[in-house]
Amino acid sequence: MRVAIQGAPGAFSHEAAHRALGPTVELVPCADFDRLFASVLSGDADRAIVPIENTLAGSVHENYDRLASHPLHNVAETRVRVRLCLVGPPGASLASVRRAASHPVALAQCRRFFAAHPEIEMVAARDTAESVRDAVAEGTPARAGIGSALAARLYGGVPLAEEIEDHPGNFTRFLVVSREPVSVSGPCKSSLMISTDHAPGALYRALGVFASLRLNLSKIESRPIMGRPWEYTFYLDVLGESQGDLAEGVAELTSVAHGVRVLGYYRPAPEE
Amino acid sequence: MRVAIQGAPGAFSHEAAHRALGPTVELVPCADFDRLFASVLSGDADRAIVPIENTLAGSVHENYDRLASHPLHNVAETRVRVRLCLVGPPGASLASVRRAASHPVALAQCRRFFAAHPEIEMVAARDTAESVRDAVAEGTPARAGIGSALAARLYGGVPLAEEIEDHPGNFTRFLVVSREPVSVSGPCKSSLMISTDHAPGALYRALGVFASLRLNLSKIESRPIMGRPWEYTFYLDVLGESQGDLAEGVAELTSVAHGVRVLGYYRPAPEE
Repeated sequence: MRVAIQGAPGAFSHEAAHRALGPTVELVPCADFDRLFASVLSGDADRAIVPIENTLAGSVHENYDRLASHPLHNVAETRVRVRLCLVGPPGASLASVRRAASHPVALAQCRRFFAAHPEIEMVAARDTAESVRDAVAEGTPARAGIGSALAARLYGGVPLAEEIEDHPGNFTRFLVVSREPVSVSGPCKSSLMISTDHAPGALYRALGVFASLRLNLSKIESRPIMGRPWEYTFYLDVLGESQGDLAEGVAELTSVAHGVRVLGYYRPAPEE
Repeated sequence: MRVAIQGAPGAFSHEAAHRALGPTVELVPCADFDRLFASVLSGDADRAIVPIENTLAGSVHENYDRLASHPLHNVAETRVRVRLCLVGPPGASLASVRRAASHPVALAQCRRFFAAHPEIEMVAARDTAESVRDAVAEGTPARAGIGSALAARLYGGVPLAEEIEDHPGNFTRFLVVSREPVSVSGPCKSSLMISTDHAPGALYRALGVFASLRLNLSKIESRPIMGRPWEYTFYLDVLGESQGDLAEGVAELTSVAHGVRVLGYYRPAPEE
């Protein structure tokens, strides 16, 4: 199976591909998210791994927009804990490192590590996995990158310090998208986008549909629609006992909200 | 008035400080968000400017956590459109630039600009305003930074290309926090955090309080509570005709949801 990810091999999307689809997938690295979606639409890839929310940084609205505007289906979800690793070339040690490169968001998540190691200078880079690859390729014991343990293994680097991120609760949730939907047996989850006007209670009536069917909401998020003050898009994740129960809820929802878009039905990932 | 921002002068938080509090504020730049909150708590600053959500990147959960855990009050909100500007030193021109530095998130938002200018290499930096400051300080016509027009003015740089960001709908919403609450006359907005258990309909009952009082929700967002599967924190922004109406809603809410935390009452910023 050919699986598209955004970023270089060793990115956290690569870890997500392994978790969701197994270790033997053939990777299709894409430079940006537009190319990620295009690769599945064109058939260059069978699946794409789409980061959709992070426990610290929030939902990735741009990727919701892409999901809404492409005729693709969410067929699975997976969560990856963002564990950051200081990686040097063979021969490096924690004591030899003077410069550590990574994406500034990753650098900012290792504040305690850098406070404890004032001899190490932070250097901004465009990508976590690439910063590990480049540090190993350069081969200088003073230079390291910060990325996943998977990136360390892939590029032959040496993990010099592990789990250096400040927050153990740093998880990214990824959706797996495909050109074709799947049938789900047993408990089922669905991601929806709906639009409502801002009349008081419009959302309340929409949620009443789920409450009366005893369907659980595991996510709800509003997002203003640019240029249309007081109109909103809502992201909903709904859990049911079966795909049929969810489909019944969606059908009723269509009678109280406009612009209902089902992004897919899939098996819920276990809670951790 | 002393106003704390995260980042260097010229950051988009600095623009937000001007919009919310006027052009004469005395700036207190802070290296990170923990220091930003500490500066208001200690009295080093009178207000702090807190980015809370971006139309492309979503809500900043870490700052919600800080708002919830500090005895501070939201007293205002403001929105800033993220307009990115290529800035060089005096003597530079668009044709002379070969390297443009900025935060990778900003670089990624200028994809069309870089596609149209393949002669310009992207260089990762830790901060938009610092990348402008450093490019101007170096004074090499081949080197530019990407940041706000305010940063260009502050550091004596020359705007070489304006509004180079891909998305005109790129806005960041900032809250203004203070040690003391304010009284609001006329239309009033409140930001709340509440917790509910995952019994179907718990959220539905909570929202029923607002629907019955005809209070408008302008934001709702769920966030899983780490380590407590199926328990959620919700972020709500509620609009009412008066502070008194909102306070009545909050009082009723307390009877159906636990862990209600009022982040503040403030005057709503105009929609754009």
